[in-house]
Amino acid sequence: MTAYDFSSTRLFVDAPMSEGAQIDFDDGQANYLRNVLRMGEGDGLLLFNGRDGEWSARLVEVAKKRARAELVGLTRPQTPSGRLRWLFAPLKHARLDYMVQKAVEMGVSRISPAITRRTQVSRVNLDRMRANAVEAAEQCGVLAVPEINEPETLEAILARWPEGEPLVFCDEDAAGADPLAPLRALAGKPLALLIGPEGGFDPAERKALSALPQTVRIGLGPRILRADTAAVAALAVLQATVGDWSSGR
Amino acid sequence: MTAYDFSSTRLFVDAPMSEGAQIDFDDGQANYLRNVLRMGEGDGLLLFNGRDGEWSARLVEVAKKRARAELVGLTRPQTPSGRLRWLFAPLKHARLDYMVQKAVEMGVSRISPAITRRTQVSRVNLDRMRANAVEAAEQCGVLAVPEINEPETLEAILARWPEGEPLVFCDEDAAGADPLAPLRALAGKPLALLIGPEGGFDPAERKALSALPQTVRIGLGPRILRADTAAVAALAVLQATVGDWSSGR
Repeated sequence: MTAYDFSSTRLFVDAPMSEGAQIDFDDGQANYLRNVLRMGEGDGLLLFNGRDGEWSARLVEVAKKRARAELVGLTRPQTPSGRLRWLFAPLKHARLDYMVQKAVEMGVSRISPAITRRTQVSRVNLDRMRANAVEAAEQCGVLAVPEINEPETLEAILARWPEGEPLVFCDEDAAGADPLAPLRALAGKPLALLIGPEGGFDPAERKALSALPQTVRIGLGPRILRADTAAVAALAVLQATVGDWSSGR
Repeated sequence: MTAYDFSSTRLFVDAPMSEGAQIDFDDGQANYLRNVLRMGEGDGLLLFNGRDGEWSARLVEVAKKRARAELVGLTRPQTPSGRLRWLFAPLKHARLDYMVQKAVEMGVSRISPAITRRTQVSRVNLDRMRANAVEAAEQCGVLAVPEINEPETLEAILARWPEGEPLVFCDEDAAGADPLAPLRALAGKPLALLIGPEGGFDPAERKALSALPQTVRIGLGPRILRADTAAVAALAVLQATVGDWSSGR
């Protein structure tokens, strides 16, 4: 947590940013600024595009279906996007929205839906997932919006898993084992975390995971965790142990 | 996580449990069993009361406004309730429900609403909080339902904080410091975790926290976390470092 001001209006825009640049908002944002926030010409806000840092801006035009701002100055330089890939079995609707938002808050840089045999969702709405990621970034002061991958089956993902990349997976059979010890060995490496479906992995998937030399099993304690809780909990221990929670890393 | 079966019907009942005991359900549970789950006489389910472990049971009567089960056998012995107190500034409605459920999943044993100067909620519905705690326990296989305290102001709580009890608080000014090092020193002690309001603590509250010798400050990384995310994240690092995630402790 930083002393960042939750109350500032902070929007993602997909446009190059530099001092004095004019930024045109899309219809949805123009409507939000005008009709929800009741903002008008001269009002200030913060903008970011995921590449050029965060900028203070001033609204120079607020009309019925369009709005435009001028960039005033850089408020925070761009942060590196990190190397934390998050793979998860998609959940339904609201719970998926929530899980994606939480993962962005926790600092994942790449979001990979992994269809497992017990995944109860057949279709993943990537636009909605991206909108949730952007919203979480807007609300939580995250400057680097994560990359979002097309869904793939877990089997396909594992079949071509990169050689030097550890894949941490939360194993219900590892409950009771200290989760921090295996994580400490991953310092300095790119990280990936796999959160399984609530019904657990299928035996064939467990076998494929065990057979992969890059997998690192961790337990998340003696209680059953819902998938969204497990995602935040596992990301927390990962970030605290070998991630970006310590500024020296 | 354990290999606990999410799909079993599992209900909390406030009645003594022993083999052969008959358990009468309240109206709400009777309605739930009959009309939502469409269960009938002879169907099996799991019951717990927070004291006598978890029991398999069989429905022996399912009528319009009442239902009764007979206990068959102990499926899991009672787990100790732990020594993890969780203090938090209440949020509004749905987000508070969610936060309480998540804290129960993460294993807190005592829930203490702490009214801070920037808390935006004036009234806390303890019955609703208790219902959420019970629901999370039912769904997540938790056997010990946490104690729920009356709300108090943070100042009053700090003024008579027990001498030998560390109070971990998540300090936005400690972002960048390794959170695990200060936690390791707490092994074997009763634990308490304070999650502040989203507007942060008031300067007077920060001063009172700093002045208390029992406080232990930890940072939760460089990003802003919403209060419910911070609660799960902090409970995860706490449980992983000095809590019950390692069975040796």
